Amino acid sequence: MTEPAFRRARSAEAKQAREGAILDAARTLGEGRGIRDVTLTDIAAEVGMHKSALLRYFETREQIFLELTAQGWREWSAALRAELAARTAATPAEVAGLLAATLSARPMFCDLLAQAPLNLERNVSLEAVRTFKLVTLDEVALIGAELHRLLGLTEQQVLDLAATATGMAGALWQIATPGPAIRALYTSDPRLGHAVVEVEPRLRRVLTAFLLGLEADAPTP
Amino acid sequence: MTEPAFRRARSAEAKQAREGAILDAARTLGEGRGIRDVTLTDIAAEVGMHKSALLRYFETREQIFLELTAQGWREWSAALRAELAARTAATPAEVAGLLAATLSARPMFCDLLAQAPLNLERNVSLEAVRTFKLVTLDEVALIGAELHRLLGLTEQQVLDLAATATGMAGALWQIATPGPAIRALYTSDPRLGHAVVEVEPRLRRVLTAFLLGLEADAPTP
Repeated sequence: MTEPAFRRARSAEAKQAREGAILDAARTLGEGRGIRDVTLTDIAAEVGMHKSALLRYFETREQIFLELTAQGWREWSAALRAELAARTAATPAEVAGLLAATLSARPMFCDLLAQAPLNLERNVSLEAVRTFKLVTLDEVALIGAELHRLLGLTEQQVLDLAATATGMAGALWQIATPGPAIRALYTSDPRLGHAVVEVEPRLRRVLTAFLLGLEADAPTP
Repeated sequence: MTEPAFRRARSAEAKQAREGAILDAARTLGEGRGIRDVTLTDIAAEVGMHKSALLRYFETREQIFLELTAQGWREWSAALRAELAARTAATPAEVAGLLAATLSARPMFCDLLAQAPLNLERNVSLEAVRTFKLVTLDEVALIGAELHRLLGLTEQQVLDLAATATGMAGALWQIATPGPAIRALYTSDPRLGHAVVEVEPRLRRVLTAFLLGLEADAPTP
């Protein structure tokens, strides 16, 4: 039995529309309350599907959020590269500022960056991990081309920088967003003042020092 | 009804011994398979107690692991400070090497460092969070005194460095330890070569650049 081409096309389109609706619902819920508290049942309810129907489009709750992480990488990378591409020259501090500003402006992406290796990649198929990793490596290479042009970074330095920027954005976001009860504790106990963390200024200072250090360590041309 | 002092002392001792046995069991299981896969039932079985009895000593599975994280901070900090205290002078690269070596030699501590803000602190009482945070801030202050002596770091630089060292140790360990199936995928697909991460060399390079950058940015005395 063969399916007519037009019907296959229509059903592929319908499938894509359904997947998009599921991802939109997961994004809305994740932005509202942090992704840790969003279950597959919540997503199904938000999109108006039965959970069993939803599982025809995605393997697990984690695959949905891993796909949102991949989308987050593409979207963040495009925004960062647009900023970098507009410059003919930049200092380490300016590049660090752009990295910190573009990451901290995307709180759900920061949340996902920490969740991906801990929780998401461990509850999906190997093919889903492969697809996700290829997206991140492609985006790092694209960002790297701009950073090579502006600061002369090598491939290894780009990989180290990308790991530091995204690793610290994830870690700092988790520490900076501990939930209202713990945040109230931090601000009420004067001994815990240093437990209150702001993502952007710390990320900017760390990345500025990192990039200045690469420059200081470079052989004089 | 008052309890005789000697009986209170004996029961306090017995309680402490039980708590120690529970922590030892959780540590053994966590070192063997990574803490994500260790349940409260596993710990109870390992220590030879009923789960309900175990819950008289700890609130939750997460409190047990948060207590192990606090122990990890004290133990790591003591080892690092012993190395630092033995030196009358040190370069940024030497200090970065010590930080990377002492952290990567403690894989379960790296695992816990990433799990604490994501999972552990969110499933315990506020008092447990307070106790834990005070331990980490005390140890950072002790480490900071050595780093001020050797490299002239300010309090803010020490806090940024501690966040970077422990945040990246946690993030890199999670990425470097994705489980056997994903590791096999990374090494079998040549496009995924950069997905294979080694904790110590990357952590050493990142912290070296960070500390060199602080030095480069410092006003000339």
